[in-house]
Amino acid sequence: MEINIILVQADEMKSAFKDILIKTGFTNTKAKELADIFTTNSLEGIYTHGVNRFPRFIRNTRDGYIKPDAEPSLTHASGSLEQWNGNLGPGPLNAVFSANRATEISDIYGIGLVALANTNHWMRGGLYGWQAAKRGYVFIGWTNTIANMPAWGAKDPHLGNNPFVLAVPYGREAVVLDFAMSLYSYGKMESYANEGKKLPYQGGFDRDGALTDEPEKILESWRTLPIGYWKGASLSLLLDILATILSAGSSVNEITARKVEYDCSQIFIAIDISKLRNYPSIEKSVQGIIDDVHSSAPVNDETKIRYPGENVSKIREDSLKNGIPVAKNIWEEILTL
Amino acid sequence: MEINIILVQADEMKSAFKDILIKTGFTNTKAKELADIFTTNSLEGIYTHGVNRFPRFIRNTRDGYIKPDAEPSLTHASGSLEQWNGNLGPGPLNAVFSANRATEISDIYGIGLVALANTNHWMRGGLYGWQAAKRGYVFIGWTNTIANMPAWGAKDPHLGNNPFVLAVPYGREAVVLDFAMSLYSYGKMESYANEGKKLPYQGGFDRDGALTDEPEKILESWRTLPIGYWKGASLSLLLDILATILSAGSSVNEITARKVEYDCSQIFIAIDISKLRNYPSIEKSVQGIIDDVHSSAPVNDETKIRYPGENVSKIREDSLKNGIPVAKNIWEEILTL
Repeated sequence: MEINIILVQADEMKSAFKDILIKTGFTNTKAKELADIFTTNSLEGIYTHGVNRFPRFIRNTRDGYIKPDAEPSLTHASGSLEQWNGNLGPGPLNAVFSANRATEISDIYGIGLVALANTNHWMRGGLYGWQAAKRGYVFIGWTNTIANMPAWGAKDPHLGNNPFVLAVPYGREAVVLDFAMSLYSYGKMESYANEGKKLPYQGGFDRDGALTDEPEKILESWRTLPIGYWKGASLSLLLDILATILSAGSSVNEITARKVEYDCSQIFIAIDISKLRNYPSIEKSVQGIIDDVHSSAPVNDETKIRYPGENVSKIREDSLKNGIPVAKNIWEEILTL
Repeated sequence: MEINIILVQADEMKSAFKDILIKTGFTNTKAKELADIFTTNSLEGIYTHGVNRFPRFIRNTRDGYIKPDAEPSLTHASGSLEQWNGNLGPGPLNAVFSANRATEISDIYGIGLVALANTNHWMRGGLYGWQAAKRGYVFIGWTNTIANMPAWGAKDPHLGNNPFVLAVPYGREAVVLDFAMSLYSYGKMESYANEGKKLPYQGGFDRDGALTDEPEKILESWRTLPIGYWKGASLSLLLDILATILSAGSSVNEITARKVEYDCSQIFIAIDISKLRNYPSIEKSVQGIIDDVHSSAPVNDETKIRYPGENVSKIREDSLKNGIPVAKNIWEEILTL
């Protein structure tokens, strides 16, 4: 399939998103905040949870799964632990709020944990890591999801891919890891399938239980491969248990029973590193570790060894200058929303 | 290679360990505690960080890398964050202390974080997760290590396998995940090689950069595979950065520069779940998630779907009854220490 790519300027994208969000029932302020988030994710190269996902976010809101005017409410606080109810509001705004609240708690106690129940898909978890890290906090967070991956040794999906985020301040930018427990997302496998390409590595099992690098076969079996096989499957399970019990929210199997992915449970942990004895030398420590990894011998001359998030500032700059690449059919669909 | 296995009773093992530890300079109390830990790890099936590792622990102590009489000292405290210096004491005792201290902090603030610098190999991280979870706490912890895995796209090791532990109370037992960032440990690959077997899945690259399931080739290249390829490599890096900056301790590259693995950095986080609004229903929530995963359709009739740690109580019971399986040559070596 040939994909026609157009370039959309960030301002134009933001303004189009905002108009559609207002039409969908969001206040002017919330529409602006959400438009900013979807545009930033697109500017920073995470199209799957930026522009490409925007139509689904609008549909989910119009279908009533996302409540445009809901805001998080505190259900319980005990020192550095807080439990909040997302009241099925827009996931990205609930997440921004919760990550900020975690940093406020960490300002008092050193570490703050917000467990958020009854929220919706946060789109790109890494964004909240970037935001916290750029303000000087370490961030650890994760979400559960609908079941989309089998347990190790199983055929049918009972685990979520439960994305996990770790972020650390690094100069004016940040080192940010944002990864799901499945090796490839369904969106990624669909892209490979559409382009008629194989996956770079075996990404799941076919219907007969054989490992395969053919994306079509995994899209058919729904048996995507956990990172590290049994290890990623176990990590997924533990992240779900923790998100569920800490937030008093829904678990993967409860989300899955509803068929549509809404009402997730999420964890936001912030650490105020300015409270550490060695605060003045932290930047130097991070630099030392990154310099050491950069000094690795690459497998070949074309390969560059990168830390997680290293590419983001360059992609952001390029897209700000040249526009954000968007599939023409997706942009046309958005303009009809 | 044929391996001769003998069965050693737990009491006999503990007593042998204790005598050797006393001979190595540990006080009676510390020798008893360490003998308990090495025996428990063996009883629970983690031989690689129990009986099989005991001779190396003794050698490292006799060589001066582990200080038998050192104890952790507080370097800095700020609310729920504490930084401790392990003073190069025995890793398992420093870890027990730090995990307990994290639970004490969480008793006050809800969540407690102990960052421990200048400590030594904690052997089996899962043990501290089990201990905390059995006392009713959620536990999150990790350690850095000597470099033993290449960055993604690199040939030479600059990353540690940095084991990571997550533990949750579950009835009288616990759900405990304890996993390294490399798919297979060197010990595991050596076992397969000794038995002339291939790895169940490709576990690394050979010298020519091709993925292989032949353990000998990975032992030769030292290019073990991170879980989830680029994902596990990134997680490893972030865990090292966090352990280093939070503890003001040594990073993987600093440990590696010393050639012998000592003076690591570790993180111990405890969450006091009795402070949560939904505390009375947490056990039911965990049970619901586990029941759901157990209801998965297995790939075949022989496969049982398990949660992490599910086997431990059975292995413990069997070994308590029948003795702990140990390679005869290892036990004979221990008796000469």
